[in-house]
Amino acid sequence: MAVLPKALQELIDELGKLPGVGSRTAERYAYSLLKRNPEVSYSIAGALKELHSNVQYCPKTFALIEKNQEVSTLYSDPTRNKQVIAVVEEPLDVVAIEKTGQFKGTYHVLGGTLSPIDGVGPEQIRVPELLERIQEDNVEEVILATNASVEGESTALFVQKQIEAKGLIITRLARGLPVGVDLEYADQITIGRALEGRQTL
Amino acid sequence: MAVLPKALQELIDELGKLPGVGSRTAERYAYSLLKRNPEVSYSIAGALKELHSNVQYCPKTFALIEKNQEVSTLYSDPTRNKQVIAVVEEPLDVVAIEKTGQFKGTYHVLGGTLSPIDGVGPEQIRVPELLERIQEDNVEEVILATNASVEGESTALFVQKQIEAKGLIITRLARGLPVGVDLEYADQITIGRALEGRQTL
Repeated sequence: MAVLPKALQELIDELGKLPGVGSRTAERYAYSLLKRNPEVSYSIAGALKELHSNVQYCPKTFALIEKNQEVSTLYSDPTRNKQVIAVVEEPLDVVAIEKTGQFKGTYHVLGGTLSPIDGVGPEQIRVPELLERIQEDNVEEVILATNASVEGESTALFVQKQIEAKGLIITRLARGLPVGVDLEYADQITIGRALEGRQTL
Repeated sequence: MAVLPKALQELIDELGKLPGVGSRTAERYAYSLLKRNPEVSYSIAGALKELHSNVQYCPKTFALIEKNQEVSTLYSDPTRNKQVIAVVEEPLDVVAIEKTGQFKGTYHVLGGTLSPIDGVGPEQIRVPELLERIQEDNVEEVILATNASVEGESTALFVQKQIEAKGLIITRLARGLPVGVDLEYADQITIGRALEGRQTL
């Protein structure tokens, strides 16, 4: 005998499809929605329905853009320097870098990391498209802004090898102590990288 | 300038309404849905739309039931002992107790804890309805199965005072060591309760 009403159990099962959401969390989400005004559930449902039909990938940068846009405004904007490309893994990484307000170049979203085991090869992470843009826009610098994880590092290394023959400047984001962190709480590898990358004052 | 497409940003904002979901988590949820088949988003949206119109509270136990049900099957089932009532805070607590398969009585869902500051008084937590059922069903035992938190304990104490004049057995769930936990990792209060409630072998 089912203990919960079918509609609630179904919502719990559906919410369990979200990444990292187990049955306990899904129960908590579903029950909190049930206790609130139905309008809250309806507006979430509405946003879910609109998602796919209104979002697409920019054919130049592979950032996310509106369905009616031709190219990302972060690319088409004349104030952005097309000769500098920050290569990132995922579209949300663009948001993270844009929040700093310090980057005036353009982006290239790989759309993942290289993973031969999962069948993710150079074509899937859009390396050919990057090579094309380097040519087209006469790019001077490529900043490898992948994650500081094993996958991110190996993907950066791979991209570096593919583009180094082009004779441009290849940089990567500095490794070091995150701002606000006490030395004693930082891990050894981070401190090691901070030592390697130490700067003269 | 918005960095993310409007539809994606809206979904992130909507998912941020779920309890404990901040903007980072909402971004992760929304982007994972965008990468998956649109059908996944549509089926979550469908479940959200069905939720409120298909779930209601049982007028006897205040557990959650189907819209077309009159009373909870956990109450109407003739094999359940109506003379024993487990008083719980929330409908999901019923699920937690049912999973043990050890309880054959019925439930009474308070729908929260007593909180004079938030304006939650005896009427809101359905104490009058409990008193009514005690009379009606000739109840012999009330198990106070509220959470082992400060709010749960004080609510249990309040309910106890309201019903003790009825001359029935009032019990509460045992406090003690959770199964599988090492003594050295248990907190002092739990060990204290386990000592108080020690049982002869």
